[in-house]
Amino acid sequence: MRHVIVTPQTFRFDQPLPLRSGAVLPAYELVVETYGTLNADKSNAVLICHALNASHHVAGFHADAQGQPLPRSEGWWHNMIGPGKAVDTDRWFVIGVNNIGSCFGSTGPTHTNPATGQPWGADFPVVTVEDWVDAQARLLDALGIHTLAAVMGGSLGGMQTLSWTLQYPERVRHAVVVASAPNLTAENIAFNEVARRAIVTDPDFHGGHYLRHGTLPRRGLRIARMIGHITYLSDDVMNEKFGRSLKPADLADALAGGEPPATGPWGYRYSTQDVEFQIESYLRYQGDKFSEYFDANTYLLITRALDYFDPARAYDGQLSAALARATAKFLLVSFTTDWRFSPARSREMVKALLDNRREVSYAEIDAPHGHDAFLLDDPRYHAAVRAYFEHTVGAPSRRAA
Amino acid sequence: MRHVIVTPQTFRFDQPLPLRSGAVLPAYELVVETYGTLNADKSNAVLICHALNASHHVAGFHADAQGQPLPRSEGWWHNMIGPGKAVDTDRWFVIGVNNIGSCFGSTGPTHTNPATGQPWGADFPVVTVEDWVDAQARLLDALGIHTLAAVMGGSLGGMQTLSWTLQYPERVRHAVVVASAPNLTAENIAFNEVARRAIVTDPDFHGGHYLRHGTLPRRGLRIARMIGHITYLSDDVMNEKFGRSLKPADLADALAGGEPPATGPWGYRYSTQDVEFQIESYLRYQGDKFSEYFDANTYLLITRALDYFDPARAYDGQLSAALARATAKFLLVSFTTDWRFSPARSREMVKALLDNRREVSYAEIDAPHGHDAFLLDDPRYHAAVRAYFEHTVGAPSRRAA
Repeated sequence: MRHVIVTPQTFRFDQPLPLRSGAVLPAYELVVETYGTLNADKSNAVLICHALNASHHVAGFHADAQGQPLPRSEGWWHNMIGPGKAVDTDRWFVIGVNNIGSCFGSTGPTHTNPATGQPWGADFPVVTVEDWVDAQARLLDALGIHTLAAVMGGSLGGMQTLSWTLQYPERVRHAVVVASAPNLTAENIAFNEVARRAIVTDPDFHGGHYLRHGTLPRRGLRIARMIGHITYLSDDVMNEKFGRSLKPADLADALAGGEPPATGPWGYRYSTQDVEFQIESYLRYQGDKFSEYFDANTYLLITRALDYFDPARAYDGQLSAALARATAKFLLVSFTTDWRFSPARSREMVKALLDNRREVSYAEIDAPHGHDAFLLDDPRYHAAVRAYFEHTVGAPSRRAA
Repeated sequence: MRHVIVTPQTFRFDQPLPLRSGAVLPAYELVVETYGTLNADKSNAVLICHALNASHHVAGFHADAQGQPLPRSEGWWHNMIGPGKAVDTDRWFVIGVNNIGSCFGSTGPTHTNPATGQPWGADFPVVTVEDWVDAQARLLDALGIHTLAAVMGGSLGGMQTLSWTLQYPERVRHAVVVASAPNLTAENIAFNEVARRAIVTDPDFHGGHYLRHGTLPRRGLRIARMIGHITYLSDDVMNEKFGRSLKPADLADALAGGEPPATGPWGYRYSTQDVEFQIESYLRYQGDKFSEYFDANTYLLITRALDYFDPARAYDGQLSAALARATAKFLLVSFTTDWRFSPARSREMVKALLDNRREVSYAEIDAPHGHDAFLLDDPRYHAAVRAYFEHTVGAPSRRAA
């Protein structure tokens, strides 16, 4: 197995970026990775858009000082994108870009606000899906690429993909929209809002200026991640993975008096604050891990970008009217047990595109993993994407640029 | 319309109550309301078991000093229980009882621990559904009632109802189990756990001894309630009630500079921390209200009672085996859009009872309101309960005791 080693690059943009909110980002940097080789006519570029908790590091491995692949450093869509994979980097020049407002390198709230010399924190401007797409378009300009063979993304990345076909229809030949939706439902917004309230009401949040106070709102981030995580999984997969299994007694804990012993016919510990069930242990671990690396203001910004995305809003809620300007061909994929972005939401997009007589392929994958399925290595799902790239996007010119 | 005025009574029990955890509650009080008249042979008693956020105040109104009904003081199942209603208090002697560990009057964590003279707080023993049923059985003893015409409850109250038929099969003629389940799924436990973590990690929680510190963990309670509230509603009803509607601009707020003005073609305010959508405003209101009156330790205790309930656990997960000892006749009701306690969970109970050749009626009500439907005035639902009481529970002796 070849381990492709990748190194992120930073692109600086000094032209101010006007945002949908009316604010202007004076200057910004985008962190980018690319995989494969751009061909001579620059017709084989595929842009990958990331979701909430991801970055420009889509595929390949990062290297240590000796140039060896770092363990567990593979990109977040590593199973999908690479040499010989469904999105084959022997054919396609794949671009991963970290979005503005993120905490993984591109300009965001942990960076310095040039106007104050302090971290942006809560003063970082609200960014939207449309703003991200504008910034990505400027990146293509910098790379000398006019037209994308494809834009592709899952979840929030799928929203960016859809928005590409509306904002820059002439620059997109194909759009691959996975596990996504044309907007959030009230329930989706509700989950985002609870997560945000957990962060904002954490006393260590300090109105979003926690860095100036030398604190981090880790409690709030933990709760936010636990809520999010529940919505990424299906009830089925949770029952299968965890069910009602109890966390095994930890001998070290027991010796230290840290946990009450199990009693009674059910083997319960009978505690309201200690971990009892495995699902609790798993969620706490996920929350703790997330709170160590994710920025709270970024969480607020990205969930708001999700809330705000709604191309049909300017068309009285008529999605067909909103998608009329798209000229790309589409592949949409959804997963049967995804209750965060259900198949019904994908079907709404399929219908609106068909209303406009667009070419649309649609795969509804019977998978037990809920929303998370879009990141997993499901053979039917990957086969659908592979077939779309091989047969519909077609063979790019093989001559290197 | 007759307004039935009710007054709660307090029953004190000095005999210690052994709990499933192995702990013993030395003495306790139960707050109780009754509606209707107990007949001579004491055969018309119906016990109502309450869910998380409810109490003994099931029906009727409380009165002001002049004996007039207080506005908005109606009991939580007022639409179901009363003179001429589905559970007709002209025929049945209905008993509402507040459970141990609650914060509505019966002995709970806000009360004084006789051993320390301080509020129990986090030292209040963990109570289970089975413990509650034991305490309720002692209440019946005190009332001189041996056999219940029916036990009835929704959600967690349905779990108590089911447990009654297993712990005291000879004392229950009919069991009415509404919107309930034979145990929680991993996802149910996960939502409870996130809510508990929000409470426990609130700096004002102080390990559960907040009363001694003169604080209340209101932030955590708000988050817990918001999470809970999302799971009580269906996606459909949220979309119908709130959809993606924005909170209308508040002139007073705008004049005070409290909220940024709406901008852009979508009418958004573009804020990560202010309310933008109506669903956010609604959830914040629900959270704020709840945090003003509910006790945090009670929240932990009651969600744990939900987590722990699992009669099949002692039977290798075989629900049919677990329910073999039930001799009551059953009415089960579920609601199609209830994703917290879905119809599939009610069907599991129906099947297990039929496996044991028990008499079971089952109504699956096509209602849009999610889990909340069990508290709402749905004509088909109420008709099913009315018919069951009229025709299956039958006419009680009308002679007063």
